[in-house]
Amino acid sequence: MLGVGVIGYGYWGPNLVRNFSDVAGCEVVSVCDLRPERRALVARRHPSVITTADPDEIIRDPRVDAVVIATPVSSHFELAMRAMAAGKHVWVEKPLALDVMQASKLVEQADRTGRTLHVDHTFAYTTAVRKVRELVQGGALGQIYYYDSVRVNLGLFQHDVDVIWDLAVHDLSIIDYVLPDKPVAVSATGIAHVPGKPENIAYITLFFESSLIAHVHVNWLAPVKLRRTLIGGDQRMVVYDDVEPSEKVKVYDKGITTRAGADMHQLQIGYRTGDMWAPQLDVTEALHVEGNHFIECIGRGVPTLTDGRAGLRVVQILEAASRSMRERGRTIELEASRCAA
Amino acid sequence: MLGVGVIGYGYWGPNLVRNFSDVAGCEVVSVCDLRPERRALVARRHPSVITTADPDEIIRDPRVDAVVIATPVSSHFELAMRAMAAGKHVWVEKPLALDVMQASKLVEQADRTGRTLHVDHTFAYTTAVRKVRELVQGGALGQIYYYDSVRVNLGLFQHDVDVIWDLAVHDLSIIDYVLPDKPVAVSATGIAHVPGKPENIAYITLFFESSLIAHVHVNWLAPVKLRRTLIGGDQRMVVYDDVEPSEKVKVYDKGITTRAGADMHQLQIGYRTGDMWAPQLDVTEALHVEGNHFIECIGRGVPTLTDGRAGLRVVQILEAASRSMRERGRTIELEASRCAA
Amino acid sequence: MLGVGVIGYGYWGPNLVRNFSDVAGCEVVSVCDLRPERRALVARRHPSVITTADPDEIIRDPRVDAVVIATPVSSHFELAMRAMAAGKHVWVEKPLALDVMQASKLVEQADRTGRTLHVDHTFAYTTAVRKVRELVQGGALGQIYYYDSVRVNLGLFQHDVDVIWDLAVHDLSIIDYVLPDKPVAVSATGIAHVPGKPENIAYITLFFESSLIAHVHVNWLAPVKLRRTLIGGDQRMVVYDDVEPSEKVKVYDKGITTRAGADMHQLQIGYRTGDMWAPQLDVTEALHVEGNHFIECIGRGVPTLTDGRAGLRVVQILEAASRSMRERGRTIELEASRCAA
Amino acid sequence: MLGVGVIGYGYWGPNLVRNFSDVAGCEVVSVCDLRPERRALVARRHPSVITTADPDEIIRDPRVDAVVIATPVSSHFELAMRAMAAGKHVWVEKPLALDVMQASKLVEQADRTGRTLHVDHTFAYTTAVRKVRELVQGGALGQIYYYDSVRVNLGLFQHDVDVIWDLAVHDLSIIDYVLPDKPVAVSATGIAHVPGKPENIAYITLFFESSLIAHVHVNWLAPVKLRRTLIGGDQRMVVYDDVEPSEKVKVYDKGITTRAGADMHQLQIGYRTGDMWAPQLDVTEALHVEGNHFIECIGRGVPTLTDGRAGLRVVQILEAASRSMRERGRTIELEASRCAA
Repeated sequence: MLGVGVIGYGYWGPNLVRNFSDVAGCEVVSVCDLRPERRALVARRHPSVITTADPDEIIRDPRVDAVVIATPVSSHFELAMRAMAAGKHVWVEKPLALDVMQASKLVEQADRTGRTLHVDHTFAYTTAVRKVRELVQGGALGQIYYYDSVRVNLGLFQHDVDVIWDLAVHDLSIIDYVLPDKPVAVSATGIAHVPGKPENIAYITLFFESSLIAHVHVNWLAPVKLRRTLIGGDQRMVVYDDVEPSEKVKVYDKGITTRAGADMHQLQIGYRTGDMWAPQLDVTEALHVEGNHFIECIGRGVPTLTDGRAGLRVVQILEAASRSMRERGRTIELEASRCAA
Repeated sequence: MLGVGVIGYGYWGPNLVRNFSDVAGCEVVSVCDLRPERRALVARRHPSVITTADPDEIIRDPRVDAVVIATPVSSHFELAMRAMAAGKHVWVEKPLALDVMQASKLVEQADRTGRTLHVDHTFAYTTAVRKVRELVQGGALGQIYYYDSVRVNLGLFQHDVDVIWDLAVHDLSIIDYVLPDKPVAVSATGIAHVPGKPENIAYITLFFESSLIAHVHVNWLAPVKLRRTLIGGDQRMVVYDDVEPSEKVKVYDKGITTRAGADMHQLQIGYRTGDMWAPQLDVTEALHVEGNHFIECIGRGVPTLTDGRAGLRVVQILEAASRSMRERGRTIELEASRCAA
Repeated sequence: MLGVGVIGYGYWGPNLVRNFSDVAGCEVVSVCDLRPERRALVARRHPSVITTADPDEIIRDPRVDAVVIATPVSSHFELAMRAMAAGKHVWVEKPLALDVMQASKLVEQADRTGRTLHVDHTFAYTTAVRKVRELVQGGALGQIYYYDSVRVNLGLFQHDVDVIWDLAVHDLSIIDYVLPDKPVAVSATGIAHVPGKPENIAYITLFFESSLIAHVHVNWLAPVKLRRTLIGGDQRMVVYDDVEPSEKVKVYDKGITTRAGADMHQLQIGYRTGDMWAPQLDVTEALHVEGNHFIECIGRGVPTLTDGRAGLRVVQILEAASRSMRERGRTIELEASRCAA
Repeated sequence: MLGVGVIGYGYWGPNLVRNFSDVAGCEVVSVCDLRPERRALVARRHPSVITTADPDEIIRDPRVDAVVIATPVSSHFELAMRAMAAGKHVWVEKPLALDVMQASKLVEQADRTGRTLHVDHTFAYTTAVRKVRELVQGGALGQIYYYDSVRVNLGLFQHDVDVIWDLAVHDLSIIDYVLPDKPVAVSATGIAHVPGKPENIAYITLFFESSLIAHVHVNWLAPVKLRRTLIGGDQRMVVYDDVEPSEKVKVYDKGITTRAGADMHQLQIGYRTGDMWAPQLDVTEALHVEGNHFIECIGRGVPTLTDGRAGLRVVQILEAASRSMRERGRTIELEASRCAA
């Protein structure tokens, strides 16, 4: 039985505590939060769990095998470093850290200590995204042409991170999981509408070595909630709409056909439109799948699907995208990113 | 009774001929097309109209007061210059010309000859776009924060122009008509997937002097047809969805509120969500409204709403956007564009 | 070359004239309408076609082989009887006639004269309805459980026929074409909201000998346009939504499974949910398909898919449904209907 | 502090216990369920609550002021009668009882004992239905013409009650709450597809003394989930779609206009189409609103909005509709129903 300690009982922490209580093979030992009223809430809901205001009490606790970090991103680095140093496996909320420097050190620390470092890229554990990955990587779409995602709604303004770090992190982690290639450069634009607050709208283009292009549109100030991704291949295309209650993934048997024209140098382009197909998706909860996967990978001593390296790759793009956005779209190369892969 | 001659009876020409046959105060005198089978079609459908293979026959014809040019964009400049030189008013399909140089000369020619030079930015004459303009310019949305448009579908690959010149021209002409400010710089990204063909996906960001940002996403290879524009203001927001059979324009009484926090330097952000409202839109045909407007402006000697200057402004952005796209998002300033306004 | 004469150039007549002008193997010889301005319109649009105010001029004309009747339903019987007596083939708009008596006599007249009597149940010639029929009759849905159709919008009030004869006629003709069985009884309810006008809302239930039930909801006073049909089988289910611009037909691999429970007398019910699939539908115009079919059947001397007997079966249900509606849902048996089949 | 005892901890019971734990002014004292594993679940979740297998332990408990009955409908009558006899206030799940006889006796018992008898018609406490009621009863729609509801999905087959008692009970309770008049007769049709199981599809028409008609369509075997109600008035119309995540209620400023024609006896009908408007709806939980209302009404000694009489009226229609369905649509008068009002 693996002991789990959770640091941070704010917005997401309660889901994590509830979830790890349901995962077989582990038990929630203790929960840390600075605010007494949050600790009281834990005590009411989970009478057998120890509460504390001191994260080191969890990190030092010999009954705790894995530390789950659900605090603001600025504290991820310190807490995760200390936890791994103390021999604990670590689950960190996304994004992994504040910058590439921190994220790299966390990856090194995991390597050095031999601990499991897992980043909570939850979407990679949804049945919809797994189906999309299967379609993309299994060749059903053919050669991938583009990945286009829109994630907008009237959302909470963050004070410390811009909309890229808050929302695009989801899309970038899905892209990291789903696409066969890694981006080599990024160009982003965006704007801040409230003085003193970070950018609340952003558009990110990712360039690849192949003829693949990816684009992410995020916005905290949209009147409607949109969560739609288009993925085009030369054989088929996918619409993944996370707002749809059912049929989140639709596969379109559509595309273009090319053949040499009368003039040898000129390609003739034709169209092909066939059936649409929405595969049945199980309704398992992503967080539960992810929790099981984390526990199982610790047991087998293998990295999780969304390990520290995945977290680092995403932070590299986040950092580059934010920089490009502040320079009105200047292209930033991502060489470093490939070394980390 | 104003005489109209139409040059080009391809995809759009038949709509123009049919439309001008219905507009009061004018009559279609002659139609030119190089292809005998197209001329035969004109003859069958409009027995009283003269057909010819020679555009100059129309340009020189004293019964023709206005020349309508619906030929490929590469021929717009020559035909329109000659028509104005011959004293004719001119209606040109969008985009006005191949580049800023040509477009500028057309505007000068119109000034010099005192002729009406009209560009067929059809959307400016739809009830939906007019309602959007009324909302934006009448202040209902408050200060405008962003304009975001998506125009994608499985569309015809063009051979000579990229997807920006083919599709984004619509959005840029709507932006020109609807927004209170003119853009000062542009950054675009995109890609060509078929060897030897122009770019088929593009993302364009327009920067303004105010804290307004505009973005246009166009794609010839999308599995679904999307025509959706989000416009956010600090008072209200609009969704304009041209694919909707009715309720194309929806106004959301939503936004954020800001007030000084306890800490004087920190703004507190709140949310406001109220009713949604879809104004009733008449079902007049845009082309008919535009035809009437063209004839009326000729009669009154005033420029049309989408005159040569509007056409030039749009061409300036198209040219800059295509250039930026080929340089992976490098920001291009649009100083010249403001001179023309 | 088959000569066609069209009687009635009101709402639907122009579509018929235009359509028969395009159908190979026939030519429109003459058009009749009582109103001089409608005849003038025909003359302008189709200079080679003879116009007349007297239907008998068409019926007697030796160049006319087939008479198309697009007049108010009250005149269908007289015109069609006379046309067949004169040796003409006949195409009648739906519904075939005012009542079962008239419709039966038309079927007898067609038998006696050996002429083709065709009823314009246009939906039977759409690719969507043909696909639905193929799914139902090919067994893809298994045993059919129900057919449920909604056809409502803010529609034109008719003065002489109720909403059943105006709108439900479409659904009843689709049911006649698509379902494997014929109904044996009908119960309908409805109401008239405008004094002196016919019923504007109606609900019709059709009973069958098998465990199939069909229901049709029609309404002239609905705020939104709905055209949706659900068809449930024990293997699969279909949603046919005619308002959808694409993907009009969706097939759901869903259903219940039954097996004997522990208690022999009690069935255990389980659920099965699989993929959804939207077959690609060609975009051929139904009226064109139907016109070709009419001409071809005349040539081969065989009945059309929607012949007089189909028209009679639909009129039998219309008549019974209207009667049931006026008696607040009293069940009316349809014995007569089965004799006609 | 009002003591609450809950009988039945099956599908809905947990929501009730959780909800009454949150309602101010009351506390959950005890929970009864026959199954030990359900009682164990209560103990884990609510350590301070007493559990028992014997409902009479709750009914006799002096600390219990109100008994909440969430058991199968067949036991409602016995339990509620005994609870009121013991001086308890009663909250019963819908439908109130198995038939009119039982429901009438419960109403009498409540009158005799002076206890509050409340039926859990939850929808009456949603913001959407309350807004619909406000629109209907405040006159915004004008004279009400029709109420049309569809409630279908692939749902759990019930063993003991048909689809009318399971699903249409929701619509009938909304109709009872929202419409200004009470129905006077009912005609229903339906069918059972699984041998030995109750009817799984039903269509119910309600007749009123005014020119209002209501219709309810319920189905346990539909491939898609639909929850849509159309309400038409002579001034405006409403679409209430409970599946919509936001904008559940839309008001259409549409209708017909009538005026006397040239012929005095003939009305001319025109159309009016104006804006659509979706009022902002708060996102309060209906069950919480209802719980507060129940406690408050007990305190003030007044009936709740959905009291025993409302429950009885709904049972009267359910009973009549089921009977009519078994007689293929025969109209059943609802005289008794009006006496109870």
